[in-house]
Amino acid sequence: MLENKENTRTSLAELGEFGLINHLTKDIKLVHKSSVKGVGDDAAVINHKNMQTLVTTDLLIEGVHFDLSFMPLKHLGYKAVMVNLSDVYAMNGTATQITVSIAASNRFPLEAIEELYAGIHLACKNYEVDLVGGDTTSSTKGLLISITAIGEANSDDIVYRDGAKQNDLLVVTGDLGASYLGLQVLEREKQVFEVNPQAKPDLDQYAYLIERQLKPEARRDIVKLLKDLKVKPTAMIDISDGLASEVIHICQQSKVGCHLYEDKIPLDPQVIATCEEFKIDSTMVALSGGEDYELLFTVAQSDFDKIKGNPNFTVIGHMTDVSLGMQLITRADQQIPLTAQGWDAFLKK
Amino acid sequence: MLENKENTRTSLAELGEFGLINHLTKDIKLVHKSSVKGVGDDAAVINHKNMQTLVTTDLLIEGVHFDLSFMPLKHLGYKAVMVNLSDVYAMNGTATQITVSIAASNRFPLEAIEELYAGIHLACKNYEVDLVGGDTTSSTKGLLISITAIGEANSDDIVYRDGAKQNDLLVVTGDLGASYLGLQVLEREKQVFEVNPQAKPDLDQYAYLIERQLKPEARRDIVKLLKDLKVKPTAMIDISDGLASEVIHICQQSKVGCHLYEDKIPLDPQVIATCEEFKIDSTMVALSGGEDYELLFTVAQSDFDKIKGNPNFTVIGHMTDVSLGMQLITRADQQIPLTAQGWDAFLKK
Repeated sequence: MLENKENTRTSLAELGEFGLINHLTKDIKLVHKSSVKGVGDDAAVINHKNMQTLVTTDLLIEGVHFDLSFMPLKHLGYKAVMVNLSDVYAMNGTATQITVSIAASNRFPLEAIEELYAGIHLACKNYEVDLVGGDTTSSTKGLLISITAIGEANSDDIVYRDGAKQNDLLVVTGDLGASYLGLQVLEREKQVFEVNPQAKPDLDQYAYLIERQLKPEARRDIVKLLKDLKVKPTAMIDISDGLASEVIHICQQSKVGCHLYEDKIPLDPQVIATCEEFKIDSTMVALSGGEDYELLFTVAQSDFDKIKGNPNFTVIGHMTDVSLGMQLITRADQQIPLTAQGWDAFLKK
Repeated sequence: MLENKENTRTSLAELGEFGLINHLTKDIKLVHKSSVKGVGDDAAVINHKNMQTLVTTDLLIEGVHFDLSFMPLKHLGYKAVMVNLSDVYAMNGTATQITVSIAASNRFPLEAIEELYAGIHLACKNYEVDLVGGDTTSSTKGLLISITAIGEANSDDIVYRDGAKQNDLLVVTGDLGASYLGLQVLEREKQVFEVNPQAKPDLDQYAYLIERQLKPEARRDIVKLLKDLKVKPTAMIDISDGLASEVIHICQQSKVGCHLYEDKIPLDPQVIATCEEFKIDSTMVALSGGEDYELLFTVAQSDFDKIKGNPNFTVIGHMTDVSLGMQLITRADQQIPLTAQGWDAFLKK
């Protein structure tokens, strides 16, 4: 994290909107041939000959989606980009451009916005995405970030949510639940700190969880890997709201049912250990935690040989006839109907 | 304005995010062939073969950009779309799709969000634009709307801000200053109402001003008109921050100066009368008021015959060598250097 040791404060009102935009965008170099015109006109111009354009957008609000008491601004900027790119990869596409709109109250000096943009620029660099436009304004309260990502794909390559067929395998990348637990650890430390500011927490044992929460990486590598393996999923979605919610999206849009096997859900050892410590069920965390930004997809059984044994993939179930419903098969071999929690559950807390 | 006479309140928490999205998007019909996939997957899919894609985004925040005490939600939704389409037209392009992200605090029931979307849908219908995606979330305070508009244009047709040449004519569409004055009238009435809620204001004499503030129309017609007249501007921008600020953008990016004639600035009679009543200078209102959403463009002198006498256009000046600077030529034939106010000026109020 870039720390601002001198605590310089430059007020945003001093700079004005155009000053701020110039300041934040002066070092942008466009890398995509398709980025004809970036920041600095009424609209960006993107050339997508013979490709289909993908567009996705996400809005992040302070106090709803992030807590700046433990989320460094640079990480926040990085994560805000990841959340959007993840949606493009979930279409089996290549992310090419983003626009970024920011509103900040006068509690944020220029240096804070610079940190946020440092994270945004780093994400653009790491993922080879061009920042081509946006809007910067003041807010009456807090910070909010709205990002729109543009991507491209050949129409034959695009994977929708509605293509899963009966008997297809249900596959997930990486492991699940860590990001949610990372948030629980950070919130606990915040409470400890509020009671005793001298406490020196040792967070080493939660390092993976915290990294997954603060600096998630979108699975661009999987889109390339699937291409290399010559596997085109029949349906795909990214895991932002929790595994259960995403499985339900695929089933409902594809008009199929599924069997999801509890004992197959990939969990990191830190997730298992921390669930024991927090006395929460690790399956529930994987199903409803969210913010994993892994990809969930279905493939025809005939593709099984191409993906088996690959450490990036875990087969966690298969699709069934819609009449059989969406079922979690527990370790005790019981069937429990899957229910979406995620966002709704958190809202009702 | 659609009024909600029964005062039904459906809490957003009850519906949940997916319920709300389904509810707000269930009636969307895509009209553009290029809209391959709209709401309902990770990203929208847009097909732009042999066309260039235009992207622009704007963020509107309650208490900064709008005041719900006099801005009906349906108008707000309509205006939020106009602000974005205006940027696409300012590139001489056709707006084809929008994404809409909304954050609302729990003070807004479903019915309020429906009104907002009624305005958004009406704007999409009137301007033949497809709503293809978005994000809906809760906010800790107030309402905010982030819209991204996508458009298309043949690369030969796109007009940037940086193409103005010395001796080009400076042209503006419509008339200026009305929207800013409409806001002043509405704010005055709000104060009167706070003192005396029984007051029955007669706003007929300000009808045009209020309409320009509450229900502006983006100048899609001008893009078509220019095509019909076979005029391609050398530079173009929309007037959101005020005439002065936009002239300065064109001059700086095109590396030219300009002479802008005060007596040529088009003003509606209501603007002139209301400026007298409010004892403010009408030129200052036109230069710095903003939110006109008219188009400002430059054309080669050889195109003058094609545009002269057209009631949509007013020639307000011409471009000069950069060394002569950006000058307002007053009615008294004095030269005053143009300065940008608009956003910065309002911020410092």
